[in-house]
Amino acid sequence: MGGTNSAFGIVNARGEILHRGAIRTDSYATAKDYVEALSAGIKTMIADAGLSEQNIKGIGMGVPDGNMHTGTIEHAANIPWANKSIVPLTKMVTGSTGLFCCLTNDANAAAIGEMAYGSARGMKDFIVITLGTGVGSGIVCNGELVCGHDGFAGELGHVIVRRYNGRPCGCGRSGCLEAYTSATGVARTAREFLESKPDESLLREINDRPITSKDVFEAAEKGDKIAKEVFEYTGKILGEAFADFITFSSPEAIILFGGLAKSGDHLMKPIEKALNENILTMYKGKTQLKLSELKDADAAILGASALVWEK
Amino acid sequence: MGGTNSAFGIVNARGEILHRGAIRTDSYATAKDYVEALSAGIKTMIADAGLSEQNIKGIGMGVPDGNMHTGTIEHAANIPWANKSIVPLTKMVTGSTGLFCCLTNDANAAAIGEMAYGSARGMKDFIVITLGTGVGSGIVCNGELVCGHDGFAGELGHVIVRRYNGRPCGCGRSGCLEAYTSATGVARTAREFLESKPDESLLREINDRPITSKDVFEAAEKGDKIAKEVFEYTGKILGEAFADFITFSSPEAIILFGGLAKSGDHLMKPIEKALNENILTMYKGKTQLKLSELKDADAAILGASALVWEK
Repeated sequence: MGGTNSAFGIVNARGEILHRGAIRTDSYATAKDYVEALSAGIKTMIADAGLSEQNIKGIGMGVPDGNMHTGTIEHAANIPWANKSIVPLTKMVTGSTGLFCCLTNDANAAAIGEMAYGSARGMKDFIVITLGTGVGSGIVCNGELVCGHDGFAGELGHVIVRRYNGRPCGCGRSGCLEAYTSATGVARTAREFLESKPDESLLREINDRPITSKDVFEAAEKGDKIAKEVFEYTGKILGEAFADFITFSSPEAIILFGGLAKSGDHLMKPIEKALNENILTMYKGKTQLKLSELKDADAAILGASALVWEK
Repeated sequence: MGGTNSAFGIVNARGEILHRGAIRTDSYATAKDYVEALSAGIKTMIADAGLSEQNIKGIGMGVPDGNMHTGTIEHAANIPWANKSIVPLTKMVTGSTGLFCCLTNDANAAAIGEMAYGSARGMKDFIVITLGTGVGSGIVCNGELVCGHDGFAGELGHVIVRRYNGRPCGCGRSGCLEAYTSATGVARTAREFLESKPDESLLREINDRPITSKDVFEAAEKGDKIAKEVFEYTGKILGEAFADFITFSSPEAIILFGGLAKSGDHLMKPIEKALNENILTMYKGKTQLKLSELKDADAAILGASALVWEK
């Protein structure tokens, strides 16, 4: 479930998506209306696949601000029918479909997906960092998702990486990792560098719309100096933060997921450099830095579906 | 096992220490000599208690740089017979006593002790922070110790809290939490404040020896301004760091353990203040700040023994 669309699919035990469907997330006034539309979509998909509810093990959902412990979606800023309340989503979906239902937040679903079908196959200790509009994280320790006592652990996008004069973050505080290393953070760094540095840059030609992280990537690909410096700055902050994360859970791998993770060496090299320079000696060279192996379009569905096997 | 002494005891399931013993840690040239002395001490204690090996479920050990996964003690800086090698300690102890043996590092043993007999009874998600000569941590998620893929997770004393111009730390890097909030860090802050601040202070009367964190506590108890400012500074850094730790594992409680934790409100009030000022809104007021409930002299033995129940 994203703020705009909800994609769903039938996934088999090998991680193949057999059938797909989608509804809008944002065009329903109440949670009840949304769940009814979702259930109708799921039932249609099952029928289209020539299957019945008996063939379905359960429904796994990846939802923003989802609480895995309680199956609720809580004060989700970007979901109009859940932004001011706690909605018992899994209960409602089970009521409406007759199927077992469980949920977790998007980043946790990505972590479960990596463990079941992706870069973390066979691992018991790893961290997935999602680099998108925001920065999220899914943490697995001892083979289990770290959800915390309240179901909301793993907000590593909101670790403070610049204690003084930090950038304002959407969370109301300043200096969060997300403020620097999300797609919007990268775009902001580009704007700042264009103002403060004298160098020529392809990015200066973009005047009719705001610069995006994709613009920065494309400029870096063409060897643009400022664009490359933007990635160096971003990667340095990520590498420093990862060195701290490793002191916490000593993961076998940190796996990058999401649009920005596709920036290749522009981002990965500076991350590796900063990680190596900042890591405690006892952990040196032990944690792999990997990219997600889940296909973008499928990742959300695969991750959510894998949650059912976990449960 | 400390750098100087190794204390041991017979513990029953209610967490009562029935018999005790101790040997030196540092007066043996080889691991073999140490293990032989330890085993002899344990056997004598069992006999003195009127028991036999059949009455003993196993031996749990809390050791510096202990690896729970492998039962080894690895490059332990302060242990002369293990500072340059990897010693298979549990195997050797089992070989010598015939009893099941498991180990973990000191801070993890403290966490297990708190869960079995102390402040974390009934909790599944909490963090123990040990404030002693160094700063250590034991992290429990989903009711299990977080050991990481290599057995060495939970070095939160080495999270970087001051990224620029940070204090040098014993680990070779700069700006670690431990460099500010260990007993030695507090003593250093006191020395710095005495130099940089003009105020009168009881601490200025200590000239014949280095100032200790205990001196700072005693001065603070008497209302000494600089001593109180030292605790405010220390507590602020701890509270800021705790706010970041909570984004990782959303623990039900953070439990303080060790000498410095006994500084009472001088330390706890500034921690609480900084934690509340720095925490992400979604976690606000959810994580308790607690003191260890294990008696000092007993804590190490209780924590280590509880490891056997866990295993």
